[in-house]
Amino acid sequence: MSAPHPHAGDPVFDLHVGGKMEVRSTVPLAGRDDLSLAYTPGVARVCEAIAGDPSLTQHYTWVPNTVAVVSDGTAVLGLGDIGPAAAMPVMEGKAVLFKQFGNVDAVPICLDTTDVEEIIETVARLAPSFGGINLEDISAPRCFEIENRLKALLDIPVFHDDQHGTAVVALAALRNALALTGRQAATTRVVISGAGAAGVAIAKILLEAGITDLAVTDRKGVVHSGRSDLTPVKRELAEMTADKTGRTGSLAEALDGADAYLGVSGGTVPEEDVARMAPDAIIFAMANPTPEVHPDVAHRHARVVATGRSDFPNQINNVLAFPGIFRGAFDVHATAITEGMKLAAAQALADLVGDDLAEEYVIPSPFDPRVGPAVATAVANAARRDGVARR
Amino acid sequence: MSAPHPHAGDPVFDLHVGGKMEVRSTVPLAGRDDLSLAYTPGVARVCEAIAGDPSLTQHYTWVPNTVAVVSDGTAVLGLGDIGPAAAMPVMEGKAVLFKQFGNVDAVPICLDTTDVEEIIETVARLAPSFGGINLEDISAPRCFEIENRLKALLDIPVFHDDQHGTAVVALAALRNALALTGRQAATTRVVISGAGAAGVAIAKILLEAGITDLAVTDRKGVVHSGRSDLTPVKRELAEMTADKTGRTGSLAEALDGADAYLGVSGGTVPEEDVARMAPDAIIFAMANPTPEVHPDVAHRHARVVATGRSDFPNQINNVLAFPGIFRGAFDVHATAITEGMKLAAAQALADLVGDDLAEEYVIPSPFDPRVGPAVATAVANAARRDGVARR
Repeated sequence: MSAPHPHAGDPVFDLHVGGKMEVRSTVPLAGRDDLSLAYTPGVARVCEAIAGDPSLTQHYTWVPNTVAVVSDGTAVLGLGDIGPAAAMPVMEGKAVLFKQFGNVDAVPICLDTTDVEEIIETVARLAPSFGGINLEDISAPRCFEIENRLKALLDIPVFHDDQHGTAVVALAALRNALALTGRQAATTRVVISGAGAAGVAIAKILLEAGITDLAVTDRKGVVHSGRSDLTPVKRELAEMTADKTGRTGSLAEALDGADAYLGVSGGTVPEEDVARMAPDAIIFAMANPTPEVHPDVAHRHARVVATGRSDFPNQINNVLAFPGIFRGAFDVHATAITEGMKLAAAQALADLVGDDLAEEYVIPSPFDPRVGPAVATAVANAARRDGVARR
Repeated sequence: MSAPHPHAGDPVFDLHVGGKMEVRSTVPLAGRDDLSLAYTPGVARVCEAIAGDPSLTQHYTWVPNTVAVVSDGTAVLGLGDIGPAAAMPVMEGKAVLFKQFGNVDAVPICLDTTDVEEIIETVARLAPSFGGINLEDISAPRCFEIENRLKALLDIPVFHDDQHGTAVVALAALRNALALTGRQAATTRVVISGAGAAGVAIAKILLEAGITDLAVTDRKGVVHSGRSDLTPVKRELAEMTADKTGRTGSLAEALDGADAYLGVSGGTVPEEDVARMAPDAIIFAMANPTPEVHPDVAHRHARVVATGRSDFPNQINNVLAFPGIFRGAFDVHATAITEGMKLAAAQALADLVGDDLAEEYVIPSPFDPRVGPAVATAVANAARRDGVARR
């Protein structure tokens, strides 16, 4: 007999025994006749048909409904580089959320390499098996090159959720927060702390959504071209953001008079800094599990407060975005996920709040059953508008 | 609306619409509390525990019960090199059989490369995601090098089913056929036609099982070292088989007086050739869908006849082997599938026939519910004997 397991009795560990997912047949296999349809000899005719017309893959296999959730384990949650084996519980979790909220079949793939070229070539070789690629918990700046090159290589959706899932949900919540506080995007001053995967993606989507006065900070303050320590990604970011307004200096200086603060840094922001924000300020402190500003503190100085946590109102949770985005992309056999599809997802999320808009309700709950279908419909329509739908 | 599909109404194609499998959650996800256990924040503690002790992967993820069914689409059924997309229906079929007959979760992986080095490195990079690798429908001789090198690289079971699944079931059926016809392995003369993946593997397992007089033929006749056209794999095969007895010549010559003929060639054998086999001959004509000798013809000259087809008695079907072999290997967290485990699987299959042994019943039915558990138990015990069990 095995010794009792050290974590036995802990509800989180007990739930994880044997993992969180399984593969199931969707066809009967009760006898020889079933076997001769689903397997040999019948299956040979389906193979031959696909060999003659590869587009039939979309009709006669599970591929078009299946996403690979790919990670190298280098930036897992707030835990950092814990490797592919330890990343698996997160990837399984992601997979079951894909199914639950988007009816998307997802397969967790944790890779035994952190080399950019090797990750790209490995995913490219796997591509015939999947209808889409969800990159997950891959550290910046490697994640940017990996995503961009795979998007160029493949004719299926490639989506780095840590970037774009977060960005879509943050934009949705910000749209509603702006409406609630009577602001216009073009005249709102926004500060983002954190210039990693999420920070860069949020900055880009906010610019696409009409925000013009935007500063992103890293540990050394505002990312601007006057700094000599910028990576290529941060240099590009500087040119799109702070350079337009000439902002420089520390996060504290950037927050002075700012309308909205979006934190994806994992750091902490002192109360005196948020106290100097504009009246009716907006604070999204999205670091997990510890927000950059505790919501109780934030509420003393801001009208709208959101976090990444489920135990406070206004949870900025990626699960509001990725299942519906892939559902919508898959429904029209999209060849890519475009900027228009992401913006449409954010708008659909924001619209669901509707007339119930309030300080404590700028974003729907992940368990609102309207979320997945609304995002999927908006994304599918945007795919058609953007010319990436195959049906 | 889409046009009606050209194959609509065909039962095989209708069954395949949308594919044959799905991913399912095995944990509840009904509300925030569930989410906080299965995903953030709870999951982080499981990740940290695995990062500290990678062996916990075996306890807290789906990995130890999950096999990758990996193909490059180069040798699919009798269809040949039809590519990775067209191979997918077979790999899905394999995956649902793994679940049905072994309660093993299987993920079909069709690779967009046929390069040996690229296949090896890709599978090696995927390895943290899977408890085992089932190679499938990869053409010979590439399949031999790919399997051997992956076995050396990885500490999880690697199994090329086209070789070893077929070999295990053929050996099981042959053991019973020998018993029925009063033969001993050491004095039985066997001829195998086909020196590809299945032929080589059958030859090796028969030698391990005590057959000593064995000739393997390819299109040019008996594989022996006097030929100048042998690949390295066939040279090794020659030394293990025909060279021991000095046999040369054509398949017809080899069959003259032979006790048993095992066909995995896809060719046809004329009736006059099988007519010259020994009395009480054994013919396993395993080519699919067309046996090398039609069973009606074979029965005129042989006492025991088997095929690969479900519509004749004595079906030599891999599904008798691979689900139970992986089930048994996974049950003890085996690091490899040894020759001893394959021999044990064959013996368990043969033993299930027991006292019911008859000309038309030398191998159990794939739908005999005893098969999977019996193979699994035998394989797990053999893994312990061979020192590859981790529990």
